[in-house]
Amino acid sequence: MRPLITIDWGTSALRGAQLDANGQVMASRDFSRGIMSVPPGQFEAVFNELFGDWMENPDALCLISGMAGSRQGWQEAPYCPCPAGFAELGQHLLWLQAGRIALVPGLSCLNAGPLNIPDVMRGEEVQIFGALQLAQRDSATLVLPGTHSKWVKVDSGRVTHFNTFMTGEVYALLSQHSILGKTLDMKGAFDTDAFLQGIDQSQQNGSVLHHLFGVRTLGLFNRMPATAMTSYLSGLLIGEELRTQTKAARIGPVILIGNETLTMRYALALQHLNIDSQCLGAQATWSGLFALATTLIETP
Amino acid sequence: MRPLITIDWGTSALRGAQLDANGQVMASRDFSRGIMSVPPGQFEAVFNELFGDWMENPDALCLISGMAGSRQGWQEAPYCPCPAGFAELGQHLLWLQAGRIALVPGLSCLNAGPLNIPDVMRGEEVQIFGALQLAQRDSATLVLPGTHSKWVKVDSGRVTHFNTFMTGEVYALLSQHSILGKTLDMKGAFDTDAFLQGIDQSQQNGSVLHHLFGVRTLGLFNRMPATAMTSYLSGLLIGEELRTQTKAARIGPVILIGNETLTMRYALALQHLNIDSQCLGAQATWSGLFALATTLIETP
Repeated sequence: MRPLITIDWGTSALRGAQLDANGQVMASRDFSRGIMSVPPGQFEAVFNELFGDWMENPDALCLISGMAGSRQGWQEAPYCPCPAGFAELGQHLLWLQAGRIALVPGLSCLNAGPLNIPDVMRGEEVQIFGALQLAQRDSATLVLPGTHSKWVKVDSGRVTHFNTFMTGEVYALLSQHSILGKTLDMKGAFDTDAFLQGIDQSQQNGSVLHHLFGVRTLGLFNRMPATAMTSYLSGLLIGEELRTQTKAARIGPVILIGNETLTMRYALALQHLNIDSQCLGAQATWSGLFALATTLIETP
Repeated sequence: MRPLITIDWGTSALRGAQLDANGQVMASRDFSRGIMSVPPGQFEAVFNELFGDWMENPDALCLISGMAGSRQGWQEAPYCPCPAGFAELGQHLLWLQAGRIALVPGLSCLNAGPLNIPDVMRGEEVQIFGALQLAQRDSATLVLPGTHSKWVKVDSGRVTHFNTFMTGEVYALLSQHSILGKTLDMKGAFDTDAFLQGIDQSQQNGSVLHHLFGVRTLGLFNRMPATAMTSYLSGLLIGEELRTQTKAARIGPVILIGNETLTMRYALALQHLNIDSQCLGAQATWSGLFALATTLIETP
């Protein structure tokens, strides 16, 4: 098999790995050289500087996922429309050097509703396909928590639909810039009870815009310690996702992909609502890129 | 009748008015001397400096509403629990000078749900009672849009329940500090069509945390001009309030209290959902304080 280089080039971080013929990581490198730090026109130079030695073998194949394929990245790789699986991703690769270096496109889908508003992801698609490989499943509901949290439906190996939620960003805005910040003690350890109280409250009738004000009044009336408030706020916002996604359809065991802190919270919340889940971490990215590369190499 | 001085002492502004025996404003004064600008212990001095001449008449009666009665204000006037009307407010006045200067308390109520979370208002209660006087009604649903928007149910002259929504604050956070800020052109004039598209979208299934991400993708795919986006975002957030409040119960003509820019938007959105409304402005504050003072004077 050809030497395989996989790169995850995000907004703020850049990670690369050399994989062996079984998809195992032989070497990896991490840099704080996300696309925001790279001046326009300098992407190739940065790539050569950081990974040029890995690319010296003329047979090397390099796949790059993430924001490097966005309008602000190396080159814009147009979104691949859903439903999409490995085959569609492979067909929509943007080759920077023919047969040698390619950008993996993100996915897009259209929401129901009067405006048919598009939704997008970039980078998550390889994690999704990697996670399905690791979990040995070809149909599942997957959740990728984070700044812009994604709920994804995969059917027979293809992403059929997904929804993005601004949960992580709204949590950061509220705790850093809103009046709630005065009530919260961000140094408090994670408080499971307060978190689950937030989950329960978010399942009640009414709007999250109203429930959020409760964070202030609970503090005002000394009904919850300031150290527990951050966990309660986190529960309110994660619970708002769950309220709309878990009622929408019967969902089987959910696959959670992301860092442990966040996936643990989602797993706890799902369990509280009697939904099983399974957590997977960063290895999903390399698995996904490896599986995609294998498809390319096997089907010339 | 005794000379009547009414003061609305908020977080950032301080307004005062001298009313005649019919409740008409004889003179008014506005200062940028909200409670945030007054050092602890200095409230009486500031009051005497700005309104001492109006208080020279030994018969003068002064009622002060707003954040001056909060923990950070002149003195804390404990919340008056709902249901509450003029009688309950009058009983819960906090007299700073017996029979002469009083702080009007805010209102509190308890929400249904596992935590019975309290809700609070301070200053809005006099606007509500004033608006009911002006509209000559004793039962109504009232909305006070703003940073922390209030939906209020009044039955036979008493506030029975209310809900606060962090709509205005979340709008400011998203447009100033979030990734959506990059998509929005805040200088765009109000766009009725985009606003009503936001209202329609917010009534769809799904969470506002998801709908918000649509502001980004509509921009990404050039599906809406940047100048129209702020109106669309405003529609999404105001629509989220309406989604939960207008479905909750059959509501008659709604009374909207606040500045014209905001009440006009709510009136437009309500009309779009086939709900009548009536707008009232700042005069509601003086009407409410006048009516409250009248009650006090009539029932010694």
